[in-house]
Amino acid sequence: MKLPDPAQINCVACIGAGSIGGAWAAHFLRKGYDVRAWDPAGDGESRLRHTIDTAWPSLTELGLSPGADRRRLTVLQTLEEALDGAEFVQESAPEDIPTKVGLLSQIDSATSPAVVIASSTSGYNMTELQVNCIHPERTVVGHPFHPVYMVPLVEVAPGKRTDQVVVDWAMQFYEHAGKAAVRCNEGVHGFIANRLQSAILREAQHMISAGEASAFDIDRAISQGPGLRWAIMGPILTLHLAGGEGGIESYFEKFPDDHKEPYSRLDSPEITNDLRKKMTNGAKMLAQGRSATELAEERDRLLLGVLSAVRGGL
Amino acid sequence: MKLPDPAQINCVACIGAGSIGGAWAAHFLRKGYDVRAWDPAGDGESRLRHTIDTAWPSLTELGLSPGADRRRLTVLQTLEEALDGAEFVQESAPEDIPTKVGLLSQIDSATSPAVVIASSTSGYNMTELQVNCIHPERTVVGHPFHPVYMVPLVEVAPGKRTDQVVVDWAMQFYEHAGKAAVRCNEGVHGFIANRLQSAILREAQHMISAGEASAFDIDRAISQGPGLRWAIMGPILTLHLAGGEGGIESYFEKFPDDHKEPYSRLDSPEITNDLRKKMTNGAKMLAQGRSATELAEERDRLLLGVLSAVRGGL
Repeated sequence: MKLPDPAQINCVACIGAGSIGGAWAAHFLRKGYDVRAWDPAGDGESRLRHTIDTAWPSLTELGLSPGADRRRLTVLQTLEEALDGAEFVQESAPEDIPTKVGLLSQIDSATSPAVVIASSTSGYNMTELQVNCIHPERTVVGHPFHPVYMVPLVEVAPGKRTDQVVVDWAMQFYEHAGKAAVRCNEGVHGFIANRLQSAILREAQHMISAGEASAFDIDRAISQGPGLRWAIMGPILTLHLAGGEGGIESYFEKFPDDHKEPYSRLDSPEITNDLRKKMTNGAKMLAQGRSATELAEERDRLLLGVLSAVRGGL
Repeated sequence: MKLPDPAQINCVACIGAGSIGGAWAAHFLRKGYDVRAWDPAGDGESRLRHTIDTAWPSLTELGLSPGADRRRLTVLQTLEEALDGAEFVQESAPEDIPTKVGLLSQIDSATSPAVVIASSTSGYNMTELQVNCIHPERTVVGHPFHPVYMVPLVEVAPGKRTDQVVVDWAMQFYEHAGKAAVRCNEGVHGFIANRLQSAILREAQHMISAGEASAFDIDRAISQGPGLRWAIMGPILTLHLAGGEGGIESYFEKFPDDHKEPYSRLDSPEITNDLRKKMTNGAKMLAQGRSATELAEERDRLLLGVLSAVRGGL
């Protein structure tokens, strides 16, 4: 496949401009792109402009890229007009299979095969959505998190007929566009973050059902406890720091049977050498050569900022 | 039981002054208490003073209470001296049952029965620890989170022989002392936050083992995604906001079968009317009368602060 340089993309199309599509448009405008938008709803344009105007003060505070300008938004009357000249397409239609399958097929027909088409779907896999595309190899999931113009995460996942080159391209494009892109394999239901959110919610619901703690106290236990650290690092880097100077390898040496502690209703997988190796490699990539002491100091510095920012939480 | 007014406590004893006990001492000093500390290690005092001196610039930035002064720390040579005059005791010995049982028994013998004794234990229940106390009714778990002088959470949990009045007292005392206290029932292994942390870690480990995503990407998916929101609110308030103006009740109406989505390997409990009611009550307590719009605006304002504070994470 011949794809353009992801760093050279100037013009993106946002197809569907509801709360997700509108927030994508706001994000791309902040990052200095031309945005061509289309929404079939009669009040689509006014809602979109309202979304962007509401978000703009926050985006300005977060920092506008050179050239970023709300006037670089063009709202078009037809799908085909919106796609004309677009070098990347972000589809954000409602979560309805026939709607998305039909829309992606129309986008596929109206654009050059060198234009990557990403879907904001949160609930479907690209394999289900790309079925009517003539060039399914350039379609990919790009699942954002709400509010899209603030939370960096976007989850990139292929369908069975997606070209691996397109996954790599989307990862690079999103990073260049100021998002934090993570990769998820084909067929993983809910991608990564929703699965981890479900794991927490379900353990919480079990605890509430069993009368172990109240919903109020469980919610506070997150936002006043580990939630403050999760804004800074995830579970792998947390274990790496728990191991002290020796990192996650020391942690595994000290607590080889730690996973057997019945701390959650979800059983641990077998902690094989392969899993340990994958976790260790991930921790090293995340540490980027910094020592445990350096990481702990940086964590505490960031934590101080987070605590000052939230002042007791919501 | 006759207990003092938790808002009138002036002098606390920190028994065991390693990384946890030392951080407790730093926190209580920040909040304007007299702190009497004891640690059996030969270098206990120098390590403790080093912990406090290292923490002090951060504590100053977080804000010192009126009268807060590092010179209000007294390090004593014996346990009995440290307990003399203490109106509250925080025990932070190593996680070893015989050590903790013996130490709590000594503290119990050396203090008036009106002094509440809290243990920082992360792994044991108070029922196991209070066995040799003459007055077990005033012993309770007060499990903090690392770093104790920054993360507000403390989990309060009784043993079988703990008086309920003591749990209420500890909740009030900790809140007065600037912590965010949550209540957990007797016998819950790992209390609340560690269980929720385990749920996430285990789902993550399953995903890594199955090759669904890399450890690196899973970690980033948290810190660049839901982790940013978890610094502000937990899973219950998140559902409340997901319901829009109608709150969590609207959410349950819209998605009655949502829990059946196979998003995590941990199965959901049955979503009974009782569970829905408990979650709804919790959400209302957390909302404190604020509308969904007000909460969403406040969340976004806080999120902006968190994003500015972490600037791309660790």
